[in-house]
Amino acid sequence: MTTDYIKSGDAIYEKSFAIIRAEADLSLFTEAEADVAVRMIHACGVVEAAQHFQFSPTFVADARAALQAGAPILCDAEMVAQGVTRARLPATNPVICTLRDPRTPDLAKEIGNTRSAAALELWRPQLEGAVVAIGNAPTALFYLLDMIAAGAPRPAAIIGMPVGFVGAIESKDALAESNLGIPFAIVRGRMGGSAMTAAAINALARPGL
Amino acid sequence: MTTDYIKSGDAIYEKSFAIIRAEADLSLFTEAEADVAVRMIHACGVVEAAQHFQFSPTFVADARAALQAGAPILCDAEMVAQGVTRARLPATNPVICTLRDPRTPDLAKEIGNTRSAAALELWRPQLEGAVVAIGNAPTALFYLLDMIAAGAPRPAAIIGMPVGFVGAIESKDALAESNLGIPFAIVRGRMGGSAMTAAAINALARPGL
Repeated sequence: MTTDYIKSGDAIYEKSFAIIRAEADLSLFTEAEADVAVRMIHACGVVEAAQHFQFSPTFVADARAALQAGAPILCDAEMVAQGVTRARLPATNPVICTLRDPRTPDLAKEIGNTRSAAALELWRPQLEGAVVAIGNAPTALFYLLDMIAAGAPRPAAIIGMPVGFVGAIESKDALAESNLGIPFAIVRGRMGGSAMTAAAINALARPGL
Repeated sequence: MTTDYIKSGDAIYEKSFAIIRAEADLSLFTEAEADVAVRMIHACGVVEAAQHFQFSPTFVADARAALQAGAPILCDAEMVAQGVTRARLPATNPVICTLRDPRTPDLAKEIGNTRSAAALELWRPQLEGAVVAIGNAPTALFYLLDMIAAGAPRPAAIIGMPVGFVGAIESKDALAESNLGIPFAIVRGRMGGSAMTAAAINALARPGL
């Protein structure tokens, strides 16, 4: 006996996106935002998650323009970096994660913070105009906001989607309520994660399937 | 202005797990299963997800014993492999993902299935006694069940947690209702994903923080 199921990747994506568009309430989003929202829902399997998505007004346009122009993608976790489909990127954009850089553990001790936060110190040379993708650690998002407030280079857009129970809600609220003026996308509440974050990047990198 | 937040990784984990244990209904699980469930909830940020977790009776004990004995961990996606914390593994267990093996695209054409499914053909030499971790592709889980039914080597335990809208529910139901007699853990319904799957492995690899 062999199981019967859809065996074409494209057909699976198409049917998945159709189900999501039929079930999810995307009425609060622009068409471009809805494209991103659909992929994020696809990554988590929960259509109701859409009610927690928030995009600042110029986020999609600004993040897309930055990627088109070759902006690096700075990821807080290797899982986020692995989830970015390289073939979709419009300009062979560098995908960078410095969490496992050999300098990070010492930096963490120095600044008295997590390795996830300390890894951002190594982003400084690439931070100007970059697309930031934080999908794991609230401490990384908090640290980024403090770095920028203190004068660090400004990224073109920030995807702030850490998941969890301690600091996730607060760090995303802090991003949305900051007066830094940097376009952002968040998932309010506890949900988020590396898959949703990578899905957002994949949607921004190229519209459609 | 610098934001005030918890900056110790261990303290964040401890507080997160305490919140989850206070909020989640873990009454259906053994103590060992609850340890795994807590990490899975931590990975998705949704305490209600626990109601969809199902562990076969010997799953935790058998998967733990296999890992202790050095079993390889076979992952359907690089994100799952990246989520496995190497330092927690009890026997420097190999963590294997064959999705990007150069042979996989041709194998996919040959068998008329997705690359995620085709990648499993390359698991055969390691499959006997392995711990399988499928967190992304329903096609991989369907294909695994067909492979084993057709006489492929038998893994020690199967974590079947693909996420999504096409085939995810059906493939996990098929695993739970199969008569292969292999211990399994699933998340019923659409939820699942690489983070929950890696979290299950990390919990099995070492109890506690």
